[in-house]
Amino acid sequence: MKWIDELTGGETRLAKAFDRAIYILIVASLLQFALETLPEAEPFMSWFIWSERVIVAIFTVEYVLRTMSGRLTYVLSFYGIIDFLAIMPFYLSLGALDLRSVRILRLMRLLRIAKLQRYGTALKRLRLAFFDIKDELAVYFGLTVILIYLASVGIYYCEHDAQPDAFRSVFHSMWWAVSTLTTVGYGDVFPVTVAGKLLTFVILILGLGIVSVPSGLIASALMKQTKTEEKSAPQKEDQ
Amino acid sequence: MKWIDELTGGETRLAKAFDRAIYILIVASLLQFALETLPEAEPFMSWFIWSERVIVAIFTVEYVLRTMSGRLTYVLSFYGIIDFLAIMPFYLSLGALDLRSVRILRLMRLLRIAKLQRYGTALKRLRLAFFDIKDELAVYFGLTVILIYLASVGIYYCEHDAQPDAFRSVFHSMWWAVSTLTTVGYGDVFPVTVAGKLLTFVILILGLGIVSVPSGLIASALMKQTKTEEKSAPQKEDQ
Amino acid sequence: MKWIDELTGGETRLAKAFDRAIYILIVASLLQFALETLPEAEPFMSWFIWSERVIVAIFTVEYVLRTMSGRLTYVLSFYGIIDFLAIMPFYLSLGALDLRSVRILRLMRLLRIAKLQRYGTALKRLRLAFFDIKDELAVYFGLTVILIYLASVGIYYCEHDAQPDAFRSVFHSMWWAVSTLTTVGYGDVFPVTVAGKLLTFVILILGLGIVSVPSGLIASALMKQTKTEEKSAPQKEDQ
Amino acid sequence: MKWIDELTGGETRLAKAFDRAIYILIVASLLQFALETLPEAEPFMSWFIWSERVIVAIFTVEYVLRTMSGRLTYVLSFYGIIDFLAIMPFYLSLGALDLRSVRILRLMRLLRIAKLQRYGTALKRLRLAFFDIKDELAVYFGLTVILIYLASVGIYYCEHDAQPDAFRSVFHSMWWAVSTLTTVGYGDVFPVTVAGKLLTFVILILGLGIVSVPSGLIASALMKQTKTEEKSAPQKEDQ
Repeated sequence: MKWIDELTGGETRLAKAFDRAIYILIVASLLQFALETLPEAEPFMSWFIWSERVIVAIFTVEYVLRTMSGRLTYVLSFYGIIDFLAIMPFYLSLGALDLRSVRILRLMRLLRIAKLQRYGTALKRLRLAFFDIKDELAVYFGLTVILIYLASVGIYYCEHDAQPDAFRSVFHSMWWAVSTLTTVGYGDVFPVTVAGKLLTFVILILGLGIVSVPSGLIASALMKQTKTEEKSAPQKEDQ
Repeated sequence: MKWIDELTGGETRLAKAFDRAIYILIVASLLQFALETLPEAEPFMSWFIWSERVIVAIFTVEYVLRTMSGRLTYVLSFYGIIDFLAIMPFYLSLGALDLRSVRILRLMRLLRIAKLQRYGTALKRLRLAFFDIKDELAVYFGLTVILIYLASVGIYYCEHDAQPDAFRSVFHSMWWAVSTLTTVGYGDVFPVTVAGKLLTFVILILGLGIVSVPSGLIASALMKQTKTEEKSAPQKEDQ
Repeated sequence: MKWIDELTGGETRLAKAFDRAIYILIVASLLQFALETLPEAEPFMSWFIWSERVIVAIFTVEYVLRTMSGRLTYVLSFYGIIDFLAIMPFYLSLGALDLRSVRILRLMRLLRIAKLQRYGTALKRLRLAFFDIKDELAVYFGLTVILIYLASVGIYYCEHDAQPDAFRSVFHSMWWAVSTLTTVGYGDVFPVTVAGKLLTFVILILGLGIVSVPSGLIASALMKQTKTEEKSAPQKEDQ
Repeated sequence: MKWIDELTGGETRLAKAFDRAIYILIVASLLQFALETLPEAEPFMSWFIWSERVIVAIFTVEYVLRTMSGRLTYVLSFYGIIDFLAIMPFYLSLGALDLRSVRILRLMRLLRIAKLQRYGTALKRLRLAFFDIKDELAVYFGLTVILIYLASVGIYYCEHDAQPDAFRSVFHSMWWAVSTLTTVGYGDVFPVTVAGKLLTFVILILGLGIVSVPSGLIASALMKQTKTEEKSAPQKEDQ
């Protein structure tokens, strides 16, 4: 039918309003998911169940309409699968499955935000920039893992005798290594021996140059991306 | 009158001295606002009330002079409205309104600092750079919100049973997510379960690349802005 | 023998599979090293001893094969020495030496990861970028050391009387300086006097501009490196 | 005398060795300054007094030699004044003045490190880069101060009633604002009310984009400086 194609096609004014309504529903659905966890919200649980039913009903109607319009092309497309995953958990919970265990699957609705990329060049630029530096990011990720491993082994040998509980094993020490090298520093574990403090000093001075480089890389790559676009814009033939 | 125009025009030496005096008054006024909150300053409260009256009197005279010079153009301009908002709270508190509740409105005086942009190119450059990357900043802000939401939901499921107080709901968990992803790490809430610690590790490694990119973007955009200015400076016809 | 040359040469399909197997063994060995420190792993210690023997046996066979293929050139090469250091600790511990004290030497096996540089340009780019800014990094390292020294002396004079335990000497204060200037902020030591807090404010505003610059420098240098490669790629004669 | 000129001139081999010896003495002197504060070093105090006398004696001889060689030009030069300030505190403490109060003045010896700039281009580049972005840094410093002020006022109103001790006044709240916006987060003060936590969230998201930009700016400016040098190197006539 023509009105279905127009509604789901995404070009007319009505289609855009329909899209926007769907996004508002997604945000509402995510908000509800968080609200349900509030102990104060216990008495309103029946409301939540009903609003969830309404949201899923609308999503189901949308899914059916899109399937009627796009057929198999839509059902098997990336967005079609996401849309299916967004409503599927609800119907699963109607069956023999316990509602609570599949509740978290409802978060898959968030994936539909990926569709927003049609609306902006910034997200596209971000993806290109990310592709540009994926080698460097992989190397830095590797170096970070090695650094965390070495820091954990080092601090384990320095602090294990002084704090056998906080630094029980190399794996327990990794918690300290992560919270220190990312400079979060909760303060639940920290070295108390002189050797451990010296190691922390060395690890931090060397480590910050490794752990915090990726964000600088992403920023630089994004700026470069913008520059490339500007260059190719007036000439138009290259790129 | 000619002397009023000269005083408020901002080009002559006298006008500049007048402007500078007004800025010193603003800083003094903001300092006084902070001093009033000191418990030790209680006995000097009558002094504060008097100095506030003097400051507002000078601002009122300035406003009247500017209105006489610029007329409706000034009154309806951006700076005219700011100047009005800076003195208005004082006169409101003279009436039936409680002094304490409008006291915070006096901070609007701070907005007058926006006028300083006339004096420097750095602020202008900052605005242009900000305009340049507003799309990227919006995308990163969106990603940050999604990341905080997902981190909060994840940590809620990992830690709720172990620490029902600190991680009471997804909203309570957001406090942890914010303080962790910005690497502040107060240490009032932190995961204690193995699952929660693993999640923190993953969230931090992925998250720092998202949360700390904007400051790198601003820095890069500012440098690009400077470069653009340098390029267009010798040619002079473009930009 | 020809099959040894082919296996260790690194060009044929078999040689690459062999290389990959060695890397998996290294990771397994490092993982085991961490697992051994788990108190829960005590009952499985005999397994660990056996798997360690197997790993070292394979590494020894590899070392012998490579020596047969490359002779003295391999034995005296950088990688030859690393390979030797990776198996040597095990044989040392078989002699009169106590096993525990040389256990940490097994970590030298990690150095073999340096061989991975043959497989990617990202690591090479990283080294070139690092070489590019080594002067700046040295200057920033020097400034960081001076800043930490000054911050420690300053905080010692401000806080020694109020907290004689946490700020016992300038050296003890350095622990605070390191954890503050890297923004880790564990919270085990912090200033409580007004003078100490003001100093922290000044040190942080000035200090962050020094301590966190190196990571920005590395990121910029890496991006520049990529640009240089792109420029020289089409022309091919320069660089 | 010719040998004095050669020794202090800084070009011959002997002069360079002399310079290096002086730097080692400075470092030794700074190290001693820190060691003296160790409670464990109390019994060795007489040694410290003697080594201090020896160091100052050498510095005094150096100062006299340089004065003989350079005369008034040296005495009134920037380095001459620094050299004088480095030895002056010791002689002051010999007089009626209490030794302890001028002890900290000995740190002025550190200023002699400024002389090191003759030896490297990296420090010169750093200064040029700093000069390049001094306007931006000033603007960011201003924005940081305003942000800290506003955050302090905001958190004071949110938290004063809940934690009257930690947030006694706007000035006390500033300690929280500084430790939060620099992401140190000691954990001695943090918001507990919902309003305070929401404010922290907003302040952090906006604030990190302001507080952490300067280090990115310095890094970018340094890279640009390097690029300018490279460009002007082959042509040589410009810059």
